[in-house]
Amino acid sequence: MHSPTLQINTKRLLSTIAESSSIGSTANHGLHRLALTEEDRQVRHLFTQWLENEGLDVRIDDFGNIYGRREGRLKEAPPIVMGSHLDSQPQGGRYDGVLGVLTALEVIRVLNEYHIETEYPVEIVNFTNEEGARFSPPMLGSGGVTGNFSKDFIYNIQDRDGITFSEALKDIDYVGETSNRLEEISAYIELHIEQGPVLSNKGKSLGVVEGIQGMTWVNVSVEGKSNHAGSTPMDDRTDALVCAGQMIGKIKELTQEIKGLKTTVGRLDVSPNTANVVPGRVDFSIDIRHEDNEIRQHALQRLKEQLSSTSFIHGTEVIIHSLWNSDTIEFSPTIRNAIKTSADELDLPSLSLYSGAGHDSKYMHSMGETGMIFLPSERGISHNEDEFTHDDDIEKGARVLLQTLLKLDTTI
Amino acid sequence: MHSPTLQINTKRLLSTIAESSSIGSTANHGLHRLALTEEDRQVRHLFTQWLENEGLDVRIDDFGNIYGRREGRLKEAPPIVMGSHLDSQPQGGRYDGVLGVLTALEVIRVLNEYHIETEYPVEIVNFTNEEGARFSPPMLGSGGVTGNFSKDFIYNIQDRDGITFSEALKDIDYVGETSNRLEEISAYIELHIEQGPVLSNKGKSLGVVEGIQGMTWVNVSVEGKSNHAGSTPMDDRTDALVCAGQMIGKIKELTQEIKGLKTTVGRLDVSPNTANVVPGRVDFSIDIRHEDNEIRQHALQRLKEQLSSTSFIHGTEVIIHSLWNSDTIEFSPTIRNAIKTSADELDLPSLSLYSGAGHDSKYMHSMGETGMIFLPSERGISHNEDEFTHDDDIEKGARVLLQTLLKLDTTI
Repeated sequence: MHSPTLQINTKRLLSTIAESSSIGSTANHGLHRLALTEEDRQVRHLFTQWLENEGLDVRIDDFGNIYGRREGRLKEAPPIVMGSHLDSQPQGGRYDGVLGVLTALEVIRVLNEYHIETEYPVEIVNFTNEEGARFSPPMLGSGGVTGNFSKDFIYNIQDRDGITFSEALKDIDYVGETSNRLEEISAYIELHIEQGPVLSNKGKSLGVVEGIQGMTWVNVSVEGKSNHAGSTPMDDRTDALVCAGQMIGKIKELTQEIKGLKTTVGRLDVSPNTANVVPGRVDFSIDIRHEDNEIRQHALQRLKEQLSSTSFIHGTEVIIHSLWNSDTIEFSPTIRNAIKTSADELDLPSLSLYSGAGHDSKYMHSMGETGMIFLPSERGISHNEDEFTHDDDIEKGARVLLQTLLKLDTTI
Repeated sequence: MHSPTLQINTKRLLSTIAESSSIGSTANHGLHRLALTEEDRQVRHLFTQWLENEGLDVRIDDFGNIYGRREGRLKEAPPIVMGSHLDSQPQGGRYDGVLGVLTALEVIRVLNEYHIETEYPVEIVNFTNEEGARFSPPMLGSGGVTGNFSKDFIYNIQDRDGITFSEALKDIDYVGETSNRLEEISAYIELHIEQGPVLSNKGKSLGVVEGIQGMTWVNVSVEGKSNHAGSTPMDDRTDALVCAGQMIGKIKELTQEIKGLKTTVGRLDVSPNTANVVPGRVDFSIDIRHEDNEIRQHALQRLKEQLSSTSFIHGTEVIIHSLWNSDTIEFSPTIRNAIKTSADELDLPSLSLYSGAGHDSKYMHSMGETGMIFLPSERGISHNEDEFTHDDDIEKGARVLLQTLLKLDTTI
């Protein structure tokens, strides 16, 4: 069982975070550290040194994922893994990803400090290119080791300058062995900022993540008639943007009808997009989220009906193209329960919630028992230099991560 | 007085139009003949030959405007001028501008054929770069001779490839003398397609243009909060696009409240314009048209109120920036009356209407008595390869232009 005397060293943790943030730091206290750039190389180098200082067995796989392993009593058992990513969005924040990796490092430091021998091997991981800001799609490192993307696919992805993932990985000298890949886990725990305002609004320091909310993406094209704004009477117009404007209202209203539904029209393009021409065509996206897959499909159906009837009233043509659907992922009940119980034992009030964003955990879930701890992000701001998490919340997170690891180590 | 026996030669007119259309013709029966390009040079050359064949005194001014002069009995009187432009939009139509120049040529051919000596000198003009498609703003030739743009301003305008107006004019060898500019007129008459559907919808062949409708352009910026679409609850959003969508509805509704008002949101840009991010900012244009300047200003005031209250409800910030205002121009009552009476005498039903688009007449109005004859454009389509005007409407237009010229010649 866990020892109640184990203490996180908050000062050490915060100074480690601060030191890592100095690599790629921006004038506005943000972080600009895109995957496989010189800044990424520097932070990887520092991270690897830290792992070696803790006596961990460091290895790098063919996606550039960095692992540090601490042996347990059960030599042959798959490890319990903690981690996240050290790359950032352009002009991004200092917490997204970084907290998951560096709280895990602090947990390992505590285990060493107290000479704790765990049952299971414990590994820490830094996944490559979680953000997808330089190489799209996101989560390539975790997607690669879990077989969600092929090596060939990942290696050939190009950034905006035409540099491939493979070339960039070689450039920073982080091409490791295929045999070093993580292949099996006993558990994966990822601590991460919420990137939404729920915990911050409800005054909770900790979120027990139930899973990753499913989403459906739809593209809508509204065809009207492009005409001269000066010479076309109002009655003679089929204005695609006036129609789309009303559709956007209907898409929002549906969230009042269906509890827990989130809809977003995030992208909208007008054609020809000139002040004195009645818009002939509007293309827009709809992002539909709900943790219940059936309700989400029902919402999509209702949306299609609304769009068709609005289009009919305006005399436009509407084409609705379902782009993709990703069903809700439910994280392991064992791990969710371990996180919840750990928080309770430490007298830290927690809240269960779904993640709206994707994380490395999404793919790790396909390898084995996975769960996430959320920390509040002030006002929900993320992917932005203003991203902020309070020091005491970081400390609480590290304590729950340690407690959860120790609990899983003896119960799974 | 006019001789009732004068007859337009329709076959000749249509074959002249067809011959001119062969220069810059597109596969889809349109015209691609941008100002001061090789195609423009060729059609200018052909046009100049036609003028010389009619014994006109041809001159070219420093903006490349081409004039053909036929003397009248009153040697010193300013001329009655007819014309328009021979340049086109990219992938534009065969009628816009061309009809005004070539019906004027037909009128001169009839005068010659019947050996008519007019009181006033009669001139025909082809203005340079009316469309503004290659060199923006539009109507540079007419704007230049009327002093609405300085020579320096016009000469230094660049096209997309960085070629100046001055260089392009030199390249096609159409730099004429400043002393050749049109300086005074007794009247200017421009025949043009309507570029709107009013005549075509009402089954009228002829429009007597009252003037050019005033317009006001406004830029609107709506500031909300950019957030993650997956992790931000609906209640926590300040979605700039949802707000803008409702504003677009209000802007349209105002046209039901104010008779004759036309409003258009033609340009709209979303930021950051990504499917999974709640729009933080939307910028859009409003084009407001009404022939009554006071009503247009009142409409602008009402719009500002509507935008402010909609913004307040959504919790966004709105900035309304008045970009420019162009008051309504009323064409000369003498010329409007001459056109109307001519149409009546020829038993051709006409309709009075305002022009929603700008034309060379807009600037010529600042030089002297100006008026326009509109011909129907099928379904209001213009600036498009599908632009179409029926042959018999072209014939009627040429007859009214001739009759109007003869009437003005004896009454002004």
